[in-house]
Amino acid sequence: MTRALHDTATDATDVLVPLPDLDRRHGPWPAGVGVHVWDGVTPGSEPAEDVLARVGLWVMPYAVPDAVHLLPRLPHLRAVQSLSAGVEKLLPLLPPGVGLHNGRGLHDASTAEHALGLILAAQRDLPQWVSDQAAGRWEPHFTRSLADTTVTIVGYGSIGAALEQRLLACEAHVVRVARRARPEQHVHAVAELPDLLPATDIVVLVLPENPGTVGLFGVKELAALPDGALVVNVGRGRTLDTQALLDETRDGRLRAALDVTDPEPLPADHPLRRAPGVLVTPHVAGGSAAFRPRAERLIVDQIHRFAAGRPLLHPFPRD
Amino acid sequence: MTRALHDTATDATDVLVPLPDLDRRHGPWPAGVGVHVWDGVTPGSEPAEDVLARVGLWVMPYAVPDAVHLLPRLPHLRAVQSLSAGVEKLLPLLPPGVGLHNGRGLHDASTAEHALGLILAAQRDLPQWVSDQAAGRWEPHFTRSLADTTVTIVGYGSIGAALEQRLLACEAHVVRVARRARPEQHVHAVAELPDLLPATDIVVLVLPENPGTVGLFGVKELAALPDGALVVNVGRGRTLDTQALLDETRDGRLRAALDVTDPEPLPADHPLRRAPGVLVTPHVAGGSAAFRPRAERLIVDQIHRFAAGRPLLHPFPRD
Ligand SMILES: NC(=O)c1ccc[n+]([C@@H]2O[C@H](COP(=O)([O-])OP(=O)(O)OC[C@H]3O[C@@H](n4cnc5c(N)ncnc54)[C@H](OP(=O)(O)O)[C@@H]3O)[C@@H](O)[C@H]2O)c1
Ligand SMILES: NC(=O)c1ccc[n+]([C@@H]2O[C@H](COP(=O)([O-])OP(=O)(O)OC[C@H]3O[C@@H](n4cnc5c(N)ncnc54)[C@H](OP(=O)(O)O)[C@@H]3O)[C@@H](O)[C@H]2O)c1
Repeated sequence: MTRALHDTATDATDVLVPLPDLDRRHGPWPAGVGVHVWDGVTPGSEPAEDVLARVGLWVMPYAVPDAVHLLPRLPHLRAVQSLSAGVEKLLPLLPPGVGLHNGRGLHDASTAEHALGLILAAQRDLPQWVSDQAAGRWEPHFTRSLADTTVTIVGYGSIGAALEQRLLACEAHVVRVARRARPEQHVHAVAELPDLLPATDIVVLVLPENPGTVGLFGVKELAALPDGALVVNVGRGRTLDTQALLDETRDGRLRAALDVTDPEPLPADHPLRRAPGVLVTPHVAGGSAAFRPRAERLIVDQIHRFAAGRPLLHPFPRD
Repeated sequence: MTRALHDTATDATDVLVPLPDLDRRHGPWPAGVGVHVWDGVTPGSEPAEDVLARVGLWVMPYAVPDAVHLLPRLPHLRAVQSLSAGVEKLLPLLPPGVGLHNGRGLHDASTAEHALGLILAAQRDLPQWVSDQAAGRWEPHFTRSLADTTVTIVGYGSIGAALEQRLLACEAHVVRVARRARPEQHVHAVAELPDLLPATDIVVLVLPENPGTVGLFGVKELAALPDGALVVNVGRGRTLDTQALLDETRDGRLRAALDVTDPEPLPADHPLRRAPGVLVTPHVAGGSAAFRPRAERLIVDQIHRFAAGRPLLHPFPRD
């Protein structure tokens, strides 16, 4: 039986990647490493068992949750590279001893750009203009702006910093909030939110999902925002209390723009879809053309590190 | 008769402004200058004739074309301050000898911000998500991005520079085009467009309307753009050839996002409203909250200059 031939971890020198033709642009690969391709979606396209048995590093297809069905068929897996920044769902599925590496930084440009698009759409009434265009209306009115507003970024990490750079160029003021205060970098602690929210025009959640963030932004936090404030979420849906948001948007007191929701996907008849002043996009912030070249650079870098036995980038802590 | 009392130009020491309560925030006014308010819209709110006869500087209401009906009733007018950057329609209506001052710079933040919003909406498929939200769909797909694209700004002036600052923060590459080349500032001449357009992903027109710009962007320029390119217009509608754009968007070869159109307002049944991949907003780029504080600062500055007999800012050339 072929598998026996490869039944030692040292044989697992190969890499399985989700993108084709990387070698044409980024090769040649280091000697001794085989690079195989599986996109996670084309039916019946999984590599043969003898190939899977040689895979030591698996770069998972992006945004294909079903792809995890391959895990039990990778007997000598040593490390998994996810192309997502948020890996909370993957974590419990990995066999012990397999290293997890996340896509930190890959989505910064794409996600920050989409967050900015959501903010501008909400401030400048784009959904209204879209429907006016189709309805034959031409009824200009003054709108809000982004310039001069105070934007509080809750979860000032990798994506938050990329968003800040864009907001500052738009003449907004930015307030940075993370788990713990870092006064030398002007970063506030989440515990200070009650003091910060009343002076916030736009709050942007860019939080990962973990026991400390689920429901972090709820009734009290929403109530602390001034009338007309905009709530944006591009992190994870469960960090924002959906029912509390519905209560505050029903009469137009607050507005919202959400790329992530709870639940997700959002059912066809979910009240968020019809809440006044609420804009929803279907978790697409990370998935744009800006992602591909950045993902390719990381994959190529990790292949060279893996082949040379050097530590891989972006290890994600497992407890 | 009262008017005779004021029938010399030296009596025209007063200023008519469109915004109320300026004195509460920015007063007191210099001695000898009376500041009166007319918003241009409230019926019957025009000041009495004896007040109008004292007006030497009129700051016109913003985006109220009808307000020009007051011109013949201002016998001692010496200068008009428009709060618009584009004053091509006002120019021929002014009596000889009356100075014209435009709103250069007032709309930079607001207009650049809206242009950015249009670009992001188009690149990230926001109109699609808006209709999916209402239709109950949750069908994420990869989109284009703004990061990594090449954006050519045709009309690299005051607004163009404000837009550039925002685009650079979004990791786009910017190509500057104005009437004449300014090589030391990396500004290209419009004559170089044939060489620049084939490498352009997004072209943004920020041109004023003048004999040199009407129809400047037509069949040839559109044809020079690569497949899938985005055409944005936030300057003046007539600088872009509408029929040529319709021909290039019909089959989806090009896309467009337009805040200004030809004609304007856009009739309810105009084909631009239903052209695939074309987003239209009703000339609202300049009119947002970002405009008001900047307009107030200019008006107050001009009042002090007028009272002191100093030259007013932003004279617009009259031939
Ligand atoms: N919508 C999309 O398509 C999309 C795309 C990419 C990513 N995401 C989501 O965005 C999240 C953030 O990504 P990132 O790359 O910016 O992550 P990051 O660099 O790790 O930053 C995370 C931020 O969240 C804060 N944080 C973490 N746990 C917290 C807690 N319990 N209480 C308060 N603050 C907490 C961190 O604070 P400290 O700095 O103090 O630790 C940090 O500021 C990802 O985890 C992912 O879920 C969404
Ligand atoms: N959509 C809205 O709500 C809105 C709001 C505000 C303004 N606008 C429009 O935007 C226009 C631009 O405003 P701005 O403040 O940026 O003006 P600006 O600073 O005067 O800049 C105008 C730019 O257009 C170029 N230009 C002028 N005539 C040209 C010609 N014949 N051929 C080629 N290029 C030419 C100029 O080139 P040079 O530098 O070589 O002279 C300059 O780069 C305004 O005139 C107005 O019509 C629209």
